Parts: sequence; C-alpha cells; structure tokens
Amino acid sequence: MSVANAEHKDPILLTPGPLTTSLQTKQAMLRDWGSWDGDFNQITTRVRQHLLEIAHAGETHECVPLQGSGTFSVEAAIGTIVPRDGHVLVPMNGAYCQRIARICEYLGRRVSTHSYAEDQAISTSDIDRLLSADPSITHVAIVHCETSTGILNPLQDIAKVVAKHGKGLIIDAMSSFGAIEVDARVTPFDALVAASGKCIEGVPGMGFVLARRSVLEQCKGNAHSLALDLYDQWVYMQKTTQWRFTPPTHVVAALDQALQQYRAEGGLAARGARYAANCKQLIDGLAALGLRSFLPKEIQAPIIVTVHAPQHANYNFQAFYNAVKRQGFILYPGKLTTVETFRVGCMGHFGDEGMRGAIAAIANVLEEMQIATAVAA
Amino acid sequence: MSVANAEHKDPILLTPGPLTTSLQTKQAMLRDWGSWDGDFNQITTRVRQHLLEIAHAGETHECVPLQGSGTFSVEAAIGTIVPRDGHVLVPMNGAYCQRIARICEYLGRRVSTHSYAEDQAISTSDIDRLLSADPSITHVAIVHCETSTGILNPLQDIAKVVAKHGKGLIIDAMSSFGAIEVDARVTPFDALVAASGKCIEGVPGMGFVLARRSVLEQCKGNAHSLALDLYDQWVYMQKTTQWRFTPPTHVVAALDQALQQYRAEGGLAARGARYAANCKQLIDGLAALGLRSFLPKEIQAPIIVTVHAPQHANYNFQAFYNAVKRQGFILYPGKLTTVETFRVGCMGHFGDEGMRGAIAAIANVLEEMQIATAVAA
Repeated sequence: MSVANAEHKDPILLTPGPLTTSLQTKQAMLRDWGSWDGDFNQITTRVRQHLLEIAHAGETHECVPLQGSGTFSVEAAIGTIVPRDGHVLVPMNGAYCQRIARICEYLGRRVSTHSYAEDQAISTSDIDRLLSADPSITHVAIVHCETSTGILNPLQDIAKVVAKHGKGLIIDAMSSFGAIEVDARVTPFDALVAASGKCIEGVPGMGFVLARRSVLEQCKGNAHSLALDLYDQWVYMQKTTQWRFTPPTHVVAALDQALQQYRAEGGLAARGARYAANCKQLIDGLAALGLRSFLPKEIQAPIIVTVHAPQHANYNFQAFYNAVKRQGFILYPGKLTTVETFRVGCMGHFGDEGMRGAIAAIANVLEEMQIATAVAA
Repeated sequence: MSVANAEHKDPILLTPGPLTTSLQTKQAMLRDWGSWDGDFNQITTRVRQHLLEIAHAGETHECVPLQGSGTFSVEAAIGTIVPRDGHVLVPMNGAYCQRIARICEYLGRRVSTHSYAEDQAISTSDIDRLLSADPSITHVAIVHCETSTGILNPLQDIAKVVAKHGKGLIIDAMSSFGAIEVDARVTPFDALVAASGKCIEGVPGMGFVLARRSVLEQCKGNAHSLALDLYDQWVYMQKTTQWRFTPPTHVVAALDQALQQYRAEGGLAARGARYAANCKQLIDGLAALGLRSFLPKEIQAPIIVTVHAPQHANYNFQAFYNAVKRQGFILYPGKLTTVETFRVGCMGHFGDEGMRGAIAAIANVLEEMQIATAVAA
C-alpha cells in the first residue's frame, strides 16, 4: 500500500523540518522579488508582525529575522544578547542544548552546564538552586522541545524562576514555536528563537529571534560577527524596512504565505491540536505494532517521537528507511548514542491520511523484513 | 509601452541579485526534500562539483556551501581561512571592500586598508609595494567586481603578485562568478566566494566558498563562529554528504536546476557574452537618452552599470523608480555618497527584449517626468 501526497506525489516528510509544506506555500516561490522593492519590504514587515503576535509579544519584543538555518539565529541570539563578560547556564538533556553550549565556547562566552539523561526533563528546582549558588550567571539558555528526542521542557516554570533571580532567558523554541503556547505576557524571556521551516510550515532558509526591546537596545557592540549581529540587523531594518544583506526572498514570501494559512487554520490552538492528534495516532499505531516510544507520555512534545528500533536480527535502519520511503514516507534517524532508535515527525502539511498511511507503511515494511514485533495479532 | 516578463508577468529585476530567474528554476522549488535523504544529498554533491568545475578548481579546491546570504560566506571565508594572528590587506574602491574590512574588525583580525576613488580600479603595483613594505600581511582580500559601482578589478594580475609574495588571496567574486572567467589553474587563490542568486541565476539563500584544499585542511580552530565555521562544515559534509545544519533545501534544488541551464546555455562563455551584450545595449541606449554611465568603459564589468542621475529639477529617484516599475522593470538605487546615481543590472534571465524594454521604459518615464536629457532628438 502506498499513500502518496495527493498534491504532488512526492514522499511525505515525517521529519522535524524541512517538512512537507502546502502546495500554496511552495507556489509563493514562483515569483522573483527585488530585495530593495517596497512590495517585498511589506512582506518582511507583515511576517515580523505576525510572528510577534503568535507569542503575544508585540508590545514588549522585536522580531529580528535572520538569513540561514535556525542554528544561525540561535548563535546570533547568544552572541548579541549575552555580553562578552556574561555567563550562560545551559541545562542539557539533548543534542540541541549541547549545541548551545558549543556555541558559547566558540564565542568565548563563559558557560556552565548541568546534565540530565535524555529521557529526563529539566528540573526547575535545579535551575533555582544553580542560580542561587552562582550569582555570576547572567543568562539561562534552554531548549523548549528537544528535537533530538521530542522531550518537552517545563518552559513556563523555568522562565518564572529565571525571572525571580533577575537573569535573562534565551529560548531555543525551534521545534515548538507556533504549535506549543509561549505567551510573552506571562512567560518572561529576553530572546526566543525559531525558524521558517518548522511548525509554521514554511520552507527552510531563515530563522528569527523575538528579542525583548529593552534588552536589544543595550546590545550594540556585543556581537562577535557582522553577519550574525542581531542588533545591527534590527537597527538597519527599523530604519529602512529592508534586510541588511540579501534576504532569501523566496523563502520569506513562502513564510508569509504559510503564516496566512496558519491564521486561517485557527492559529496556535488549531496547529497544536492537529500535531497532538498526529502524535497520539502515531504512538498508538506504533504501539499496536509492538514499537515502543522512548519517552514517557508526560514529557513527550507533540512534535517528534523517538521510537525504539525493533530488537530483531533482520532490522537495519537504512534498509527500513529505504523501504518506508518506497511507500511514500521519509522517516528520520535516531540521535541517541546509547539506544538504537528512529524518529517520526508529527509536523507538516498532511492530513489524517498521512499519519495513517505512515503507520500502514511501517507495518508493511516490518512484515516484508520479517520482523515480528506485533504485541497483539 | 510595457514589456512584462513573458513567463509570469512579474516585473523584470534589473538588480544585482536577487534577479529574474527562469520559470524552470523556480519550479524546482515545488518539491519538499528531506535534508537527511540520499536524493537531496546527491543534489548537494552535484552542485558542489559543478561550482568547482566553473572555476577549473576540481583538482585543487573544495566547494563548501553555506546557508545565508553571500556576506555570510565572505565572513565565513575570512574567519576560517585567516588565522587569529593573521593580517589582512584590503584594497578599497567600493562598499563591498569596506564591508570586508568591517568584517575583519568584527572578527578581531588585524586589517590594513588602501583606498581608491570609486571610479578607480585597484592597482597591482600598489599591492606589490604594500606587500613588500609590510611582511606581517598574511592575506589580501579583494572584490572582483564591485557591485556598488560595477567596477572590475584586475584579478589575475593581483593574484600573481599576491602569489609572488607567498601570501593568501581571498576573492569576493559575488557578482562575477559564472560570468567573468576565474581559472584556478592560472589565477591562484585560497578562497573564492560567491552566492546562489547572482550570475548562476539561482534564487538567493546560500553562498559558497571555493577553498584551496591544502589551506582548508589547516583551518581547524580558526573560526570565531560555529555557524560560519567552513572547516567544520566541510569536514561534516565530507563524512556524511549532508549539511551540518538544516540546508535551504528549495534554494539548493533551484541552484541545481539553474546550473543545468547554465551548462545547457554554454557555460561561462555564453553567460558572459550575454551579459556583455546586455551591458553594451544598456550603455548605448542610455547614452542616446543623454544618460551617462559613471565608469570608463575599460573598467566597467558587464554586470551592473552605475548611471548618473539626470541633472534636472524634476528628477527624484523614488518617483523615477516607481514609474519605471509600473512599466515592468525594477531598477536599483545608487550606492555612491558623493554623486547622485542609479544602477541597472545586466544579469538575470530575460531576453533581448528585456534590456530593450527597460531602455524604452526609462525613455518613457523621462518624458512623463518632463526631464529633457536627450543629446540627440
């Protein structure tokens, strides 16, 4: 059985971005825009405004878009927001927090880490204790939803503790923004970072930072990089409505289109509910095939699911991946070093049929590969 | 009279990138690619190979693509190739050399500059003299074609002098690569930087660096930035055929498509000849309207032409720009601080009719605005 994407017959991407976007979003790229032209600048302005609204941050924050992948924006946020003599606490329970720590090291920002097992959420009381113990810490940087496992960290509680200590919070919300609520009015943060090709369902090629205006205003001269200087990008954009350096015009136009569809679908509530339904359908469907997900349900974000590989001599990820791809679905490899897993994304533009089809495809392939995992016949 | 783009009725971009791309190139973006998937990695590999071939650099150099605008790749090249105790000489005759000097300052790399008027090419004998006078200089960084004016610097002669002194050469070939010959077999360079949305006629969103393999191998630990570390990007790509961080998949697929059209058109010779014909047609056509170009012909690159604004009370760039846009053509503002100018790009996917139409549109607008400039009736 093969359920292909009805719109364009390409495989459905069950990956954490790039993901399957709507045909309408892709069609927005069928036009060339002058990067200096007023028509394009209106798109940029509209996109920035819309992204702020999603986090209820229009009053307090500025949206600074940046060329490149989401990691470029994470690095730009740290490099611009954290002063050179700052000290960043990074609680770590996955690959993307590790990347934040690595960025701090590259940038010569002092960094302290606190590690957890990859199936354990960050503990708010640990943050409280660590901030009390070391007053030299100026910022806490966390990952909201760890794409490497799918774990959801308790952002709101952490934000309150960080604010209580009067420290700055930088959030990598790459794979949660737009699907899991972050409300700037009740969840204080200095910077929240995400990207075009994630839950908003645009195409990859730009990131953005929602930065607290009063903080951003103080950031002149912090950055280690011209290209990644968010302060400079912001000041130029405020003055001209243009990007400092050539923007990825087609990617920006696609994001604008994706945001219109996001609003039409019902915004964050609808997007979050759709992904949550996908996630439940996936976990239940795989469980019926005898495939266990890695995380306890309480800390599983409805974004991406890490699944234990079948413990069977016939199993081999590459063969499994290729066979599922032939059925029309692109899976994602695991990223854990200790346990063999694969990952399935819950995000992207595909209907109920998408997740049902993926489960059916996985079932077919397990049968083909003669891997008996079914717990119930 | 209005000559609209026959393919999609959008204005023709007479700008130095983003530029007007073919419909076929844009249509390559109508598919979502998994960034981990083998099919996409084959595209990346093919693009890298093809870009090296254009500079005859396959034997000696590596192509390292990078997310973001061209400036991101320029900064990445300087940050990765120049050691922290290096010393960069930047001859300056335009805005993009100034940007290179600014990047060096951000990065804490020692920099010496040597300035020229904006209508003067860099002098090879100056470089020779400056390198003799200060042996602490380790690298020379130049802009091949200064997009801010359209001036062509004598790359080949400069490269020979730099090589004679045993120094490294970094070339910003942003607006020349693919249209003006650079042959790595006879023009020695450590790094050449360009981007997707220029003479190759792809869409904007990624840059690339052709870096000498023997130099790149020594660059571990130089970079000031994780995102802009070309060494790390290269090592990862060699090992996995993948990008380190999410690539702009649609932009990469469009570049691959644009490169196939480039080859089919006849490669660099054909692309260069087409732009040269556009440039001649433009300069001659504008001259007939009494509009003088800023640069002497000998140093005018066939890429973008800076034109003196009409000296007339009725002239106002924004009004002129808007009126020409209504006729279907997007011009580019001047970037000189001392003289009022505008710029017209010669690059992009449009036929003879494009440049002819643009000249006719400018003529119409000058008439509408009652600006009598014609030298001949």
